[in-house]
Amino acid sequence: MPIYNAPTRDMQFILHDVLKLSESGLAGHDELDREFTEAVLDAAGKLAEEVLAPLNTVGDQQGCTLENGVVRTPDGFHAAFDQMKEGGWTALDCDPEYGGQGMPYLMGVATGEMFVSANMAFNMYQGLTHGAYSAIHAHGTDDQKTTYLPKMVSCEWTGTMNLTEPHAGTDLGMLRTKAEPQDDGSYLITGQKIFISAGDHDMSENVIHLVLAKAPGGGEGTKGISLFIVPKFLVKEDGSLGDRNAVSVGSIEEKMGIHGNSTCVMNYDSAQGWLLGDLHKGMRAMFTMMNEARLGVGLQGYAVAVPAYQNAAAYAVDRLQGRAVTGTENPSGPADPLIVHPDIRRSLMDQKSFLEGARMLTFWGAHEIDKANAGDEEAEGRISLLTPVIKGFLTDKGFDMAVLAQQVYGGHGYIEEHGMSQFVRDARITMIYEGANGVQALDLVGRKLAADGGKHVMAFFEMIKSFCKENSSNEALSADFIEPLKAASKDLQAAAMFFMQNGMKNPNAALAGSYDFMHLFGHTALGLMWAQMAVAAQAALDAGQGDAGFLNTKLATGRYYMKRQLPMTATHLARIESGAHPVMALSAEQF
Amino acid sequence: MPIYNAPTRDMQFILHDVLKLSESGLAGHDELDREFTEAVLDAAGKLAEEVLAPLNTVGDQQGCTLENGVVRTPDGFHAAFDQMKEGGWTALDCDPEYGGQGMPYLMGVATGEMFVSANMAFNMYQGLTHGAYSAIHAHGTDDQKTTYLPKMVSCEWTGTMNLTEPHAGTDLGMLRTKAEPQDDGSYLITGQKIFISAGDHDMSENVIHLVLAKAPGGGEGTKGISLFIVPKFLVKEDGSLGDRNAVSVGSIEEKMGIHGNSTCVMNYDSAQGWLLGDLHKGMRAMFTMMNEARLGVGLQGYAVAVPAYQNAAAYAVDRLQGRAVTGTENPSGPADPLIVHPDIRRSLMDQKSFLEGARMLTFWGAHEIDKANAGDEEAEGRISLLTPVIKGFLTDKGFDMAVLAQQVYGGHGYIEEHGMSQFVRDARITMIYEGANGVQALDLVGRKLAADGGKHVMAFFEMIKSFCKENSSNEALSADFIEPLKAASKDLQAAAMFFMQNGMKNPNAALAGSYDFMHLFGHTALGLMWAQMAVAAQAALDAGQGDAGFLNTKLATGRYYMKRQLPMTATHLARIESGAHPVMALSAEQF
Repeated sequence: MPIYNAPTRDMQFILHDVLKLSESGLAGHDELDREFTEAVLDAAGKLAEEVLAPLNTVGDQQGCTLENGVVRTPDGFHAAFDQMKEGGWTALDCDPEYGGQGMPYLMGVATGEMFVSANMAFNMYQGLTHGAYSAIHAHGTDDQKTTYLPKMVSCEWTGTMNLTEPHAGTDLGMLRTKAEPQDDGSYLITGQKIFISAGDHDMSENVIHLVLAKAPGGGEGTKGISLFIVPKFLVKEDGSLGDRNAVSVGSIEEKMGIHGNSTCVMNYDSAQGWLLGDLHKGMRAMFTMMNEARLGVGLQGYAVAVPAYQNAAAYAVDRLQGRAVTGTENPSGPADPLIVHPDIRRSLMDQKSFLEGARMLTFWGAHEIDKANAGDEEAEGRISLLTPVIKGFLTDKGFDMAVLAQQVYGGHGYIEEHGMSQFVRDARITMIYEGANGVQALDLVGRKLAADGGKHVMAFFEMIKSFCKENSSNEALSADFIEPLKAASKDLQAAAMFFMQNGMKNPNAALAGSYDFMHLFGHTALGLMWAQMAVAAQAALDAGQGDAGFLNTKLATGRYYMKRQLPMTATHLARIESGAHPVMALSAEQF
Repeated sequence: MPIYNAPTRDMQFILHDVLKLSESGLAGHDELDREFTEAVLDAAGKLAEEVLAPLNTVGDQQGCTLENGVVRTPDGFHAAFDQMKEGGWTALDCDPEYGGQGMPYLMGVATGEMFVSANMAFNMYQGLTHGAYSAIHAHGTDDQKTTYLPKMVSCEWTGTMNLTEPHAGTDLGMLRTKAEPQDDGSYLITGQKIFISAGDHDMSENVIHLVLAKAPGGGEGTKGISLFIVPKFLVKEDGSLGDRNAVSVGSIEEKMGIHGNSTCVMNYDSAQGWLLGDLHKGMRAMFTMMNEARLGVGLQGYAVAVPAYQNAAAYAVDRLQGRAVTGTENPSGPADPLIVHPDIRRSLMDQKSFLEGARMLTFWGAHEIDKANAGDEEAEGRISLLTPVIKGFLTDKGFDMAVLAQQVYGGHGYIEEHGMSQFVRDARITMIYEGANGVQALDLVGRKLAADGGKHVMAFFEMIKSFCKENSSNEALSADFIEPLKAASKDLQAAAMFFMQNGMKNPNAALAGSYDFMHLFGHTALGLMWAQMAVAAQAALDAGQGDAGFLNTKLATGRYYMKRQLPMTATHLARIESGAHPVMALSAEQF
C-alpha cells in the first residue's frame, strides 16, 4: 500500500516564514501563530495519514455501486466521513454564524491538501459540499441559509453542482433543463445532468443539489439560466426531512479514476426546486466562487502527485538495481539503490521542485483570496488573473509529475498493486473538470489579461520587478534566483506584448498561443514563488533560526527549479511568437 | 466505439516518395512497387479496421482471466487471431525457409503499425512471437529452427520473452532462475518470472518460452546468464506435442492497461529447457534483436496515439460547443464545432505533426534495419544510435499525444465509454517495457554516443549537414524547413560537445542530461524526417504528380512541427548545460 507523510513542516514554512500569516493584518490572523497552525495541521495530517490514506486503494478498487437506486460508497468511507465531520474538518473555514470555525480559507486549503493527497476521491464529497455551501452563503436568502447551511457546514447534508448536460459542457448556453414556476414560488425542474460528482451516496442524510436550468422569460444562451436549490429530500418547516424529491440517479459513470467518488447521471423529473440568487442570473451565482473552486482543483492537481512523489522517492531509496556510474555506493548489497542514478534524481528533482513550488503558489493564492474577501481589490485582481494559471498549470504539471513518479517504479508502476497507476488516473481528471485547461487558457488570454485595462497583469509584472529590486543586493541568491526570475518575467512580458500587438487585428494570433501562455505564466509564477521561498530560507539561515538542514534542502530544490524548469519559458515564447498561421493553416477536412 | 482509419496513403507516401523503396537496391526490394505495397497495406488495413479495432474495447473491458491454470482471452480474440494467421500476416517478414513470406522488416513494421493502432494488446501475442522467432532464427541450431520456427511463423505456436524477476528488472545480473544441466543435454529450469506478456493464453497449441537463467559455471552478474527454450508442451521427435512441461501461470497481473494481453507471473518448477545459443552468453542472444524489439515498442508508442488522434479530430468536427472568436462558422447550428477554436487546433496539430513525423522516423529506422541485415555497416551504426531515441522519444511523446487527444473530449474523455482513456492507459506501458525510457537515455548517452569513437553520431550530423546543403537552394523550403533543422542540429551538437567536455571528468554531468538529450535528439531526428518529407512533397507538387491536397497538407503539417515543436531543443540544451550539480545536490535523505 502506498505511504503518505503529511508535509506539515513544509506548510509551516510557507505560512510563517514566507507568507508571515499572523502579521498579515487580516482580521483574526494574528491568532494564527506557529503553535496554533502546527496543532491544526498535525491533527489534519494524522487524519489524512491514518484514516483517509488507507482507504485510497480500497476506493479505487471497489468504486461506487448503484443498486435499486441507492449508491453505495466503498468500504470504510462512511466511517471515515463520520470522523471527518466529528473532527470539525468540514467546518474549518466556514462562517461561525452557521456552525463554522471561521478560520481563513488558507487554512482550509492547507488541511485540504492533505486530505486530497491521502484520498482525492473521498475528499470530493466534502469539497463539493463546500462549493455548494459557498454559493448558498453568497446568494441565499436568510431563510435558505438558515435551512441549509448548518447541515452543510457539518456535512450532515452534502452538496453537488449540476451544470453539464450531454450536449452542453463548456457551452452552458445550450443547456435544456427546464424550470417551471409554481404558484408557491418554487419551481419544477426537469432534465438530465451528467458528470455530477458526489451526485448521490450513503454517507449523508440529504444531498443538496445546485442545478442550472432555464426558467421562462430568460434570453437565449447563458443569459436565460438560473440556479436552483434542489434537495434530495424536501426539508420541512421544522428542518426535519420530508418527502423524497423527484430526483434520481440514472447511472454511475465508469471512469478512468477517482472511482471512490460517485460520478452520477442525475435525472430531474419535475423535481421541486427553489431559486438561488436572482432569476436569469444563475451563471453569475454559480461562478461567484470560481476563484476558490478553480484554485481547489489546481490544488488537487499537485496534491495527488505529492504521495506519488513520496512513494517514488521511497522506492528509489529501497529498490536495488544497477550500480552508480561513479563507483559502487552499496558494496555490501547486490546492487545500489535506484537513487544513485542521475536520471532517477532528475525525475525526483523535477517532481520535488515542482510540488513545493506548486504548494507555495496555491497557498499564496488562497491568502490572496482571504485578502480579497476582506475587501482588498488589488488582491482580488491578482487572484482573478492567476486563477486560470493555478488551475491549468498545476493540474497539467501535477499529472506529469504523477507520471514521472510512476515511471520510477518501472514495470511495478504499471501494475495496480503499488497504487502508482491510481495516482496517474486520479490526477488526470483535474485537467478536465471545473473548466478544461484549454478553457482556462482562453479565460486567461481572452479575458483576464485585458481585464480592467490590463492593470492586473501590469501589477503582476511590477510585483516581480520590485521583488527583484528589493533582493538584488542579496549575493547569495542573485545569480541562482533573481536573474532567472527576471529572464522568465521578460519572456512573459514579451508574450503579453505579442498578444497586444497581434491579438487586436487577429484574435486567433493570441488564442493560438493561449495554452503556451498559461504555462509560461505558470513557470514564471513558480519562479517568483521559489525566489520568495529562497529569500525566506536564506533569511532564516542568516538569522540562525529554524532547521538548517531543511532550509538548505529548500534552497537546493529551488535552485533546481530555476536552473532546469524555468528555461521552458523560452520555448513557450517561441511557440507563441509563431502566431496563428501554423495553428490555423488546415481546413477541418485536412485533419 | 472509437473509429480507426488505416493511414495507408500516408504510408505509401513514405515508402515511395521519401524512402523510394523499390529503388533502394536491396535484394527483393525492386518488386515492392507502389501497386504491390498498396495491395498489402490495404489488405492489412482492412483486417485492422474491420476485425481488430472492434475488439479493442472488448479486450480492455473483459481482460484475460485465469481459471484452473488456464488463461482465457477476451471474446473474439481467438477467431481474430485465426484470421491473422490465415491471412499470412504473422509470416510477412519471416524467412521463406521456415514458411515466411520474405518481405522486408519495413513491411512488417508498416502493417504492424495498423495492427497496433487497431488493437495493441491483441497484437502483442504476435509481436512477442516474432521476437522469439528472431532469437531462435539467429541463435538456434538447425534442429531447433526446424522444430520451432515453422510453427512460430504461422503462430500456431506463440512465443514469450522471460527476463524480469521480482527483484531483477533492468538489472538482470541479479536474476535467480536456475538451469541445471541434465545428462541428455537439456536443462531443468527453476524460478519465477514476472511481467511476461502473452505468457499463456487459449489461442495457440503451444507457447515457446525463451527464458534467461543461470547455469552453473557462469560468472557473477550478467556474465553467468544463458538463454533457454522452454516449451509449454514438450515437442516429440515427429514434431507433435508431448507432455506438459513444468511451467505454469502463477497469476495474471492487474494492470493499468493492455488488459487484452495476458501479463503473467510464470513459475518454472524443474521445467525442461534447451540452451539457445552459447552457454553463458544469454544476454547477447536475447539482445541480438534489440534494435528491432525497441523499434517495435517505439512504434507502439505512436501507433496507439494514431486512433486517439483520429477520434479526437472527428469529435472536434462533430461536437458543437461555443462560437468561433472570429465570427460564427455554423450559423444554422446551436454552436460551432470544437475545431473552430484555436486551442483545439493547437492540440490536434501537435498530435498530427508528431504522429506523421514519428511514422516517418520509424519507417526510416526499419529501412535502416533492412539495410543493416543486408550487411550495410553504416546503416547498422545509424540504427544502433537511433534505436534508444526511437524507443524513448516516440513512446514518451506518443503517450503525451494520447493524453492530448483525450483532452479534446473534455469530461467525455475521462469516462471509459468513448475509449479515449484506454488509449492513454495502453500507451503508458510503452514508456516502461523493453527498457524503461531512462534506460534508453542511459544507453544513448552512456554507450551509443561514444560507440566506435563517436563515429555514428558524427555521421548523423554529417547526414543532416549534407541534406541541408543539398536543399539549401530550395527556396520554397529553406526558411520553413532547412533553417530550423540547422538550428536544432546545432543544439544537438552543442549538447554532445558538453558531454564530451564534461562527461570524462564527471560521468554524472552527462547522465544528468541524458533524458533531455534523448528528447533533443528525438526532436532533431523528427525535424530531419519532416524536412525529408517536405522535399519529397514539394518535388511531387513541382512535378505535378500525386494528390496536391494531400501534399499541401503534408507541407503545412511539417511547417507546424518545425515552428512549434522544434524550438523545444533550446530548452533541452539549457537543461543539459546546467550539468550534474542541480540534479545531484541532495543526499538520499533529503528527498
